[in-house]
Amino acid sequence: MSFALTILGSSGALPAYGRFPSSQYLTIQNRHFLIDCGEGAQMQLMKYQIPVHRINHIFISHLHGDHYLGLVGLLFSMHLQKRTADLHLYSQKGLDEIILLHLKYSKSTLNYTIQFHLFEPDQPVVLFEDEALTVETIPLIHKLPCAGFLFREKQKPFKIDKQKLLPDMKLQHIVLLKTGADVYDDRQNLLYRNSDFTLPPTPSYSYAYCSDTAWNESMITQLQNVTMLYHEATFMEDERNKAIETKHSTTLDAARMAQQTHAGKLLIGHFSARYRELEPALAEARTIFANTELAIEGNTFELSV
Amino acid sequence: MSFALTILGSSGALPAYGRFPSSQYLTIQNRHFLIDCGEGAQMQLMKYQIPVHRINHIFISHLHGDHYLGLVGLLFSMHLQKRTADLHLYSQKGLDEIILLHLKYSKSTLNYTIQFHLFEPDQPVVLFEDEALTVETIPLIHKLPCAGFLFREKQKPFKIDKQKLLPDMKLQHIVLLKTGADVYDDRQNLLYRNSDFTLPPTPSYSYAYCSDTAWNESMITQLQNVTMLYHEATFMEDERNKAIETKHSTTLDAARMAQQTHAGKLLIGHFSARYRELEPALAEARTIFANTELAIEGNTFELSV
Repeated sequence: MSFALTILGSSGALPAYGRFPSSQYLTIQNRHFLIDCGEGAQMQLMKYQIPVHRINHIFISHLHGDHYLGLVGLLFSMHLQKRTADLHLYSQKGLDEIILLHLKYSKSTLNYTIQFHLFEPDQPVVLFEDEALTVETIPLIHKLPCAGFLFREKQKPFKIDKQKLLPDMKLQHIVLLKTGADVYDDRQNLLYRNSDFTLPPTPSYSYAYCSDTAWNESMITQLQNVTMLYHEATFMEDERNKAIETKHSTTLDAARMAQQTHAGKLLIGHFSARYRELEPALAEARTIFANTELAIEGNTFELSV
Repeated sequence: MSFALTILGSSGALPAYGRFPSSQYLTIQNRHFLIDCGEGAQMQLMKYQIPVHRINHIFISHLHGDHYLGLVGLLFSMHLQKRTADLHLYSQKGLDEIILLHLKYSKSTLNYTIQFHLFEPDQPVVLFEDEALTVETIPLIHKLPCAGFLFREKQKPFKIDKQKLLPDMKLQHIVLLKTGADVYDDRQNLLYRNSDFTLPPTPSYSYAYCSDTAWNESMITQLQNVTMLYHEATFMEDERNKAIETKHSTTLDAARMAQQTHAGKLLIGHFSARYRELEPALAEARTIFANTELAIEGNTFELSV
């Protein structure tokens, strides 16, 4: 699975009906990310047989407990499982101090290093970049400063159409063709037109995680054409006043955001403890955005051609 | 159920096989206690349909994460559930600072008061006393300073044998008979001998919780004749060296402690992640102490006549 998201927790601030607080596991081209880490995330990772040692990057949207209280337990468990690789933690200021205080009172020294990457959530900022993808923050509107995360694959290599390759072509030509360029072969004074030798690359996917937010006009541009959008939908539409008061969203807010960003798919989650059944929320969102799914525990959403 | 214990977590430091870290819920004569509060304790309370608002006293044995990391989440949930009653928290120093730091960064003010009762774990000390029971600490031997908790019912009232009461006896005489005293009726110059009018009281029960400890000779006297003993048994006997190194106990340590304290029943828990199956540990403990049970999630142990 080159781009797959597994939901570990779908609950709002108060866990209910067996739902866990927010946490998601995202795999992109063999990179493994944890997004938020609510209480019990490590048990959920185990339940869904996700190897914890694979995770090298953890992103925390904000410092409400339901988004990070599973982190310290996970850090201790990584230590007990003999992790030695650096762990990169992306968070707002404060979480570093909290973690260090827990370590102090348990007289613990982890046998790996936590690299803290502290960010301010008020402007989009690139937190991570490598040859395959970028991760940038999405400023959200909530009671605490809060950021979502946008994971965006870079353009992938063009696929070489092997049947069309010429006997004289060299490896260096093929490498250049993969980038999408036309290639000039000076030995033979020939121009290899890219479109004659390649097939289009696999599409590049993107995933936006919007953890806790009121309706947020300002992110519409940033999230244009996102392949998959997770948007909190704490309340159904008949609780709009409650959503406004608590700076959360309704199902219809989430659906409208998917519509206005032209998202490929919408996932809704962070459900209030008042809802035992979630099908009504799903049905409501689908009245505006048909390709909506529930981001509930154990569901995996895979993006593929 | 006037004296009942429900296990919320049975796992050692590293949760495994669906087991949760240490936490237990104890009810004695309509008082409701939480003992340790490992990660996920609030979800376990919900799973077993235990009303969280009933809990007014929480006892934390020590500051290893697997014994308290569920606490901050539970405190937030109590707040969200509109708790207003004071919550009494018994712990070593440090947990107060940790809780306050979490509250600071989430900009939260709880709508109830936490009364911190900080104790030193090196000597037995009475943490709680009312007309029905006492709770005292049990000094344990572990890598961090650590205390168990001994819950002990006071003697219960003698039962009045109603058929034997005399027509002339007054309420004040009956109240005195319930205390176990003989009563002199000066109006009639009569001595009511207690044994003529009462039946013995219901037995008084006790429960000792020994969370994390190496073999601990010094608690044998304190725990003599305890009705029910929970003793950690992180390892089986063939891992004795590991137990010594980590200051934990084996199944046989736990069984010998039950034997030497003349406990009525032994519960074992805090199982290492190396054990998928727990029946072998149970069988091993029973070779020394027959009345042993596994303290595993969802099991309730009730003491009654």
